[in-house]
Amino acid sequence: MNRKLRLGMIGGGQGAFIGAVHRIAAQIDGHYELVCGAFSSDAERSRLSGMELGLAENRVYRSYQELFEKEQQLPENQRVEVISIVTPNHLHFEPAKLALRGGFHVILDKPMTFSLDEARQLKEIEEQSGKKLCLTHTYTGYPMVKEAKQLIAEGKLGNIRKVYVEYPQGWLNKLEEASGNKQASWRTNPAESGIAGAMGDIGTHAFNLAEYITGLQVTKLNADINTVVEGRLLDDDGSVLLKFDNGASGVLFATQIAAGEENNVRIRIYGEKGGLEWQQNDANTLTVKWPDRPSEILRTGSGYLSSFAKHNTRTPAGHPEGYLEAFANLYRNFALTIKALLNNEKPTDESLDFPGITEGVRGMAFIENVIASGQSDKKWIDFTV
Amino acid sequence: MNRKLRLGMIGGGQGAFIGAVHRIAAQIDGHYELVCGAFSSDAERSRLSGMELGLAENRVYRSYQELFEKEQQLPENQRVEVISIVTPNHLHFEPAKLALRGGFHVILDKPMTFSLDEARQLKEIEEQSGKKLCLTHTYTGYPMVKEAKQLIAEGKLGNIRKVYVEYPQGWLNKLEEASGNKQASWRTNPAESGIAGAMGDIGTHAFNLAEYITGLQVTKLNADINTVVEGRLLDDDGSVLLKFDNGASGVLFATQIAAGEENNVRIRIYGEKGGLEWQQNDANTLTVKWPDRPSEILRTGSGYLSSFAKHNTRTPAGHPEGYLEAFANLYRNFALTIKALLNNEKPTDESLDFPGITEGVRGMAFIENVIASGQSDKKWIDFTV
Amino acid sequence: MNRKLRLGMIGGGQGAFIGAVHRIAAQIDGHYELVCGAFSSDAERSRLSGMELGLAENRVYRSYQELFEKEQQLPENQRVEVISIVTPNHLHFEPAKLALRGGFHVILDKPMTFSLDEARQLKEIEEQSGKKLCLTHTYTGYPMVKEAKQLIAEGKLGNIRKVYVEYPQGWLNKLEEASGNKQASWRTNPAESGIAGAMGDIGTHAFNLAEYITGLQVTKLNADINTVVEGRLLDDDGSVLLKFDNGASGVLFATQIAAGEENNVRIRIYGEKGGLEWQQNDANTLTVKWPDRPSEILRTGSGYLSSFAKHNTRTPAGHPEGYLEAFANLYRNFALTIKALLNNEKPTDESLDFPGITEGVRGMAFIENVIASGQSDKKWIDFTV
Amino acid sequence: MNRKLRLGMIGGGQGAFIGAVHRIAAQIDGHYELVCGAFSSDAERSRLSGMELGLAENRVYRSYQELFEKEQQLPENQRVEVISIVTPNHLHFEPAKLALRGGFHVILDKPMTFSLDEARQLKEIEEQSGKKLCLTHTYTGYPMVKEAKQLIAEGKLGNIRKVYVEYPQGWLNKLEEASGNKQASWRTNPAESGIAGAMGDIGTHAFNLAEYITGLQVTKLNADINTVVEGRLLDDDGSVLLKFDNGASGVLFATQIAAGEENNVRIRIYGEKGGLEWQQNDANTLTVKWPDRPSEILRTGSGYLSSFAKHNTRTPAGHPEGYLEAFANLYRNFALTIKALLNNEKPTDESLDFPGITEGVRGMAFIENVIASGQSDKKWIDFTV
Repeated sequence: MNRKLRLGMIGGGQGAFIGAVHRIAAQIDGHYELVCGAFSSDAERSRLSGMELGLAENRVYRSYQELFEKEQQLPENQRVEVISIVTPNHLHFEPAKLALRGGFHVILDKPMTFSLDEARQLKEIEEQSGKKLCLTHTYTGYPMVKEAKQLIAEGKLGNIRKVYVEYPQGWLNKLEEASGNKQASWRTNPAESGIAGAMGDIGTHAFNLAEYITGLQVTKLNADINTVVEGRLLDDDGSVLLKFDNGASGVLFATQIAAGEENNVRIRIYGEKGGLEWQQNDANTLTVKWPDRPSEILRTGSGYLSSFAKHNTRTPAGHPEGYLEAFANLYRNFALTIKALLNNEKPTDESLDFPGITEGVRGMAFIENVIASGQSDKKWIDFTV
Repeated sequence: MNRKLRLGMIGGGQGAFIGAVHRIAAQIDGHYELVCGAFSSDAERSRLSGMELGLAENRVYRSYQELFEKEQQLPENQRVEVISIVTPNHLHFEPAKLALRGGFHVILDKPMTFSLDEARQLKEIEEQSGKKLCLTHTYTGYPMVKEAKQLIAEGKLGNIRKVYVEYPQGWLNKLEEASGNKQASWRTNPAESGIAGAMGDIGTHAFNLAEYITGLQVTKLNADINTVVEGRLLDDDGSVLLKFDNGASGVLFATQIAAGEENNVRIRIYGEKGGLEWQQNDANTLTVKWPDRPSEILRTGSGYLSSFAKHNTRTPAGHPEGYLEAFANLYRNFALTIKALLNNEKPTDESLDFPGITEGVRGMAFIENVIASGQSDKKWIDFTV
Repeated sequence: MNRKLRLGMIGGGQGAFIGAVHRIAAQIDGHYELVCGAFSSDAERSRLSGMELGLAENRVYRSYQELFEKEQQLPENQRVEVISIVTPNHLHFEPAKLALRGGFHVILDKPMTFSLDEARQLKEIEEQSGKKLCLTHTYTGYPMVKEAKQLIAEGKLGNIRKVYVEYPQGWLNKLEEASGNKQASWRTNPAESGIAGAMGDIGTHAFNLAEYITGLQVTKLNADINTVVEGRLLDDDGSVLLKFDNGASGVLFATQIAAGEENNVRIRIYGEKGGLEWQQNDANTLTVKWPDRPSEILRTGSGYLSSFAKHNTRTPAGHPEGYLEAFANLYRNFALTIKALLNNEKPTDESLDFPGITEGVRGMAFIENVIASGQSDKKWIDFTV
Repeated sequence: MNRKLRLGMIGGGQGAFIGAVHRIAAQIDGHYELVCGAFSSDAERSRLSGMELGLAENRVYRSYQELFEKEQQLPENQRVEVISIVTPNHLHFEPAKLALRGGFHVILDKPMTFSLDEARQLKEIEEQSGKKLCLTHTYTGYPMVKEAKQLIAEGKLGNIRKVYVEYPQGWLNKLEEASGNKQASWRTNPAESGIAGAMGDIGTHAFNLAEYITGLQVTKLNADINTVVEGRLLDDDGSVLLKFDNGASGVLFATQIAAGEENNVRIRIYGEKGGLEWQQNDANTLTVKWPDRPSEILRTGSGYLSSFAKHNTRTPAGHPEGYLEAFANLYRNFALTIKALLNNEKPTDESLDFPGITEGVRGMAFIENVIASGQSDKKWIDFTV
């Protein structure tokens, strides 16, 4: 089946950052064709965005409700098949629910929902729908992140003992939301973002990355959650001590007030036999460290890598792939999975390797647990889902 | 004008590396729609490639001659508009000539032609055609390469004195062409590649990068050209001393036998007032060095960059863009230029900033001059075009 | 006064790591002459060590008690002036007390004593003695660490908000103390090391570095202290959330079970206006980061640095100085201070910039507080001295 | 034999850079005691320098001639044994000759002499004298440079094919010699420096490093030698194509006008089986690259290194040693060799591993050949000694 999947988009109109990223991610490998959208809660802005994107006018909708209504009336071979939802957090659940119930697959930006309760509901809806959901935890799309996961799964590092994961940003080191920065405004607004700011926006990425690579689950946490910039309504900084289900311990920090930092997600993991390190600023390198022999530099595109790393790479070693390709890997694996299902084939393990509803529920649980811990005098709180 | 440009491709069938790269570069920003192709000199392979790409069967052609013939018979609003030529060097000139004469714009892989003589002819043809040609010197598509060019053009480094440019690869450190490696076979075959191996394949990139960033032209060169691997028919290694038209001197080296190296193109340039350094392995960083104050680290996506760097970036600082985005910048700028022309608008300087026929002729001159120098007992030879 | 100060050493016999480092640090700048020592609690080993070092036989003593007794009987112009104590922690207090009371200056390895109580006593003794004490917190001897301190003191980063300091090692990832590793044995033995393992050995360094550079003091901490390797008697891993006296928060971690890590002490500090980063593996670089202009790379030996950085450097930029020079800076500044006092001159601020009794007491307080926190169910404990 | 060798110094008075470096190098390991000196051609400055260094007044001499005369009259057990010569190039040969003929061992700064002819004479003198000479090519003193040499000697990289060595500096990018910079003045003055500027000062280091690590000898060269800064009397920049005796080729460049560069000597070497890279800015790392497995990071102080690397290291992995330790390794190995001879023992291979008269003659030959090539129209000239 070589035809493109028909994609619709909710949110991501003119000026939005992440909408454009989703579109590139969808286009880069040629698996999707954007056929419709409701790009903004402002109907005119939606229309203009759709025109700019070259869509047929009658498939640019004034609202997501209208989108679902009208698309369902189209013949099956024209009707949209996959819905990308790239709105702020408070507008994730409703369209995702409608999409799944309407028979569409869903790609959803993280964090999955506005609350853990919504996440639990969505899980049920997804399971009943028979449709698939992909949650865009971008960093797990990097080939060298996948290689790290494989190395640990194969036992190369031995039993994992220590995890350090960090996500430093500096762009919110002033009260940007007071000066009309749109990205800042919704992310720091409890009505749109939920109970968490930095912890929801980037803390969930760090959390997901740690659980994804190690294959472990957090069982306890002890958090210091701060609102550093005066006047801000949500947390912009947090540091969290972690315990994992195998007894390992860890540190997670995420901050948006580290003046001068960009977006250098970084993780270090140590087991009984060795350690590894990956960071987004040098995304095509995975450093593996050994106690008694030289460290090794594994590089994207190399012949010695696992099938998972190779599957998520487009170019030979030395041709750096980056954030957009990592994002595109999620879209691609999701498409390969859906196409396999449409062809009544079993998707490969490599295709199935995208974050979904389970990761979404755990991410929302992270948010609720970490904020609760930040507000608690109790040292350790159990991670409850 | 928001519709996509209709793209056709010559070469780049199943298994080809660079064809896939061209397709991603065309897709990533949504400016092109692949409508036809002659993907292989083997008609059946062309057909299978076209099907895999989801093309209409009647627009997958058995040869590039057929492609031009048939497409010209189509109504103007269906007919292909831009032709990508991604064949080995000996198959650049003929299809490019037919394309330009047939009224199509051309995107052409480098080096531009098989010989300098062909290049000169193509220049004439292009000028007469009124059509545009884009030559895919990828490295000039990187935002921080563009920033480097702007810094020098603005005089920040003062008069340029020294240029070091290098392109080390290791993948040909054995006689790969003897073991059926397709990429190796044509690149080391004089009948397909021309008079140069490494110098044509990667030396031209280094040469182009140096002239592009500095805005200078090479006037003399003194080359040591080697065939290191026994049994190889073309050069696989070369080091070249350079003189530029402002009196600066330089060193260029390109090699394919540096065992263990990937593709880390790197350039360092020094002027009276300061220096700069860029390398593909850390492509989103430009280091600017000063004699008496701290070095500065300029980063893709930052607000302080030039309009040229910003125009060629899709994401905020800290979201690494890479090789495919650099490649896509060429396709994007070419599309913006063509669309402006179709709209009877003047393309912006940023859109016009793609390599073309002039760079192609100089690149072919580099090949002929550097091989001549390598064979000559004369120390310095004049760079003639 | 150009003569060398007469130095005696307690501990540091054959095979000891840190004794040799102290001797190099003393020799490198020519301010000290080693004249006597009690190098081991084993009298014969002490004698052999002294001979190997070329000392006069009658000034190699069987015990530190004998050293003090005999040296005090020597004429003043032959008698030792400065005592270096490089024994395990449980043998710091007694010789330091005897030295200060006997009229000798003291250089003492960290942590200062076996317990906080001893530290408080030693402070009193030092104050009464009129003699000086230098505590070898090596990392504050690096020129770029001093530059970082100056930048913050001058307000370049604005009010400090966040501190991340880390000290990962991997050499104790197995039960080394069970296989006769001498360095491991005493460090993991409560009878020699005190109540802390990793926290005392390297956690104190990280703590000192954070307080030194920021000029702030820790007021609260929340620690996760672990003994990861089975059979070990003391902690080998710890992560600590911190609060500082200006309201800033931080994370400190120190571990000795991070398999494959060497000794890369690293600190990142963020203020309202910018951030900075230093790490021992690239010790001659200080990166300063700004929200809206390029990061800057400050380098040891450069003309633009503060008097403190310059004073602690021996070579021009680009000639890397390292751990031994950082260590030697402590010895040198201590010598310059003592020589100034001997000459009845006021030592310069640069000379006085070495860690001493105050840092020693705070370091011991860190150990007791962090271990208490690790054992407590209370989330935050007050840092008490 | 644990006593210190008695060291005398010629040159290196107040304000000299390299004199202080030599003294630190001599002191750091405790093998030498500075007993006398003629620190300046200005007798009063020599006296003041000697006093500052705490020497006995009667052993601070007004000239090197006086030094030799007076020292030879001293009883053998007081007389100086090793002479360090740290004067500008035109004052190397005479004192070295007097020293060797006078029965003293010699440590000599590079380049060895003022001319190749002097170098040849000195070789003869040294051979007749039965005394030893150490030439301070600092960079070969680094442990990871020694490791690189061992790896190649053991055949790990296979037959060597390509060598890139570079030495970029920026401190002479203006006419510093016109503004009283003493370091600049003599280095750019043909009467003191000889026929070469940058090529003699730093080009010889690069040349020596390449021959030392590879174990190969240069047989042909093709040089572009430039005086970039107007008004300068000697070369300040050069790039050289090389041929080695096994058929390998290479590129050497050394420049002092690369504005913003410090002193980052760097070498890359590629053989049939793999490659390696070392640079002074990250001196404790040796990267070894393989065509089909991960690159390896070898680090100073690690247990897996050769006896040569280990012998030249003082601290465990992760405690960076630098330029002064590399320099000190030359002094130390020279001392160990002399002490072995004094004890009628055979020096170990590790002790004998210091640059000497042979390297000095080849270095002077490099200067004369490279300057001749720079002035010649001939493409390749034979490297003659």
